[in-house]
Amino acid sequence: MKNAVVLLSGGLDSATVLAMARAQGFVCHTLSVDYGQRHYAELAAAQRVAQMHGAHEHRVINIDLAGFGGSALTDRNIAVPQQPGAGIPPTYVPARNTIMLSLALAWAEVLRAQDIFIGVNAVDYSGYPDCRPAYIEAFERMANLATRAAVEGRTLSLHAPLLRLSKAEIIRRGIALGVDYAQTVSCYQADETGRACGVCDSCRLRSAGFAAAGVADPTAYRAT
Amino acid sequence: MKNAVVLLSGGLDSATVLAMARAQGFVCHTLSVDYGQRHYAELAAAQRVAQMHGAHEHRVINIDLAGFGGSALTDRNIAVPQQPGAGIPPTYVPARNTIMLSLALAWAEVLRAQDIFIGVNAVDYSGYPDCRPAYIEAFERMANLATRAAVEGRTLSLHAPLLRLSKAEIIRRGIALGVDYAQTVSCYQADETGRACGVCDSCRLRSAGFAAAGVADPTAYRAT
Repeated sequence: MKNAVVLLSGGLDSATVLAMARAQGFVCHTLSVDYGQRHYAELAAAQRVAQMHGAHEHRVINIDLAGFGGSALTDRNIAVPQQPGAGIPPTYVPARNTIMLSLALAWAEVLRAQDIFIGVNAVDYSGYPDCRPAYIEAFERMANLATRAAVEGRTLSLHAPLLRLSKAEIIRRGIALGVDYAQTVSCYQADETGRACGVCDSCRLRSAGFAAAGVADPTAYRAT
Repeated sequence: MKNAVVLLSGGLDSATVLAMARAQGFVCHTLSVDYGQRHYAELAAAQRVAQMHGAHEHRVINIDLAGFGGSALTDRNIAVPQQPGAGIPPTYVPARNTIMLSLALAWAEVLRAQDIFIGVNAVDYSGYPDCRPAYIEAFERMANLATRAAVEGRTLSLHAPLLRLSKAEIIRRGIALGVDYAQTVSCYQADETGRACGVCDSCRLRSAGFAAAGVADPTAYRAT
């Protein structure tokens, strides 16, 4: 039984990744990051998902990225877009995946885990620089020079099993593994109870994914 | 005038790096990380050093790495060594430099700064995996794929000007640039006012550095 650190946001993608890592036999240590995101309800969702999908231990790390600003997810003066636009979306959080992966790396080192899982996706999130395959490869390479494992000859693997899947493919795999997507929160402006707006980029992608997968959308939407 | 983010621990090395970056004409945004280190006095030192050496803005980010444990610097049950040993020292903090550089990367992105400075040293800290030249190069490569700058064609440079200098050389350069080392705290177990123990690894390296540089040691040591 091998330990793995799984980054768990509480959204659809990372819940699927946790189920995949469990199916591969890993003892999963799930990590959420409270970085001042406006869709705070995803942290409660992460806690539920960790419990339902057999995480060995779930931790939340606090770090105030809102202090740096520069994203619609941490600065309420920047609007969450309701339509996909060209270029990098305003919901992109500067260096977020790098920070989260670094924290996962720290925990992996303490656990002597050689496997880190992250639910990045280069199909739907092609505008996010830190969701691209070349970035994931470069982080893995850096991580393999960064820690005790590197010096002691143990190799660290960064798994991004959703990297090249469509949202519909992700959902189909998750359902086959028993993921209860009703427990997940993807909405960028979910209310306190996790109910989704239905109109932000993330809601649209998610909803279209269920439609394309031929699966009823279990998301709780709030009245508008 | 170009913006730079300078990681500033409050110790001798990073104070020197700040002076170097200022001498190169950068507008310096200094960043300290409160990660639960036992030598908490270094954070007050960083604040002083930032002010004395003309930082444009100084910020402190809180992140609880003590929760992960695994280091003598964050876990009071692990002793700080008084002699250099073989291998990776117990004062090594898992993935610390990766986490700090990731935070610097986030701030650099918001500032549209293309330069990050860090005071790592591969001579005296050869046992720390994340002080090696290959690691610094790999982080820079990853950073150049991670952010908006990468997508928009701006190159990010990670400067580690102390990487191959001895402690004596670092001190000589700093003194030439007017660094007041009395304001810095290097001791791993400094007391609340910043007075040094004189016996830990870090104190020994620092004191030997002043001796080798032929400079009177300005460190305030506490009575033992």
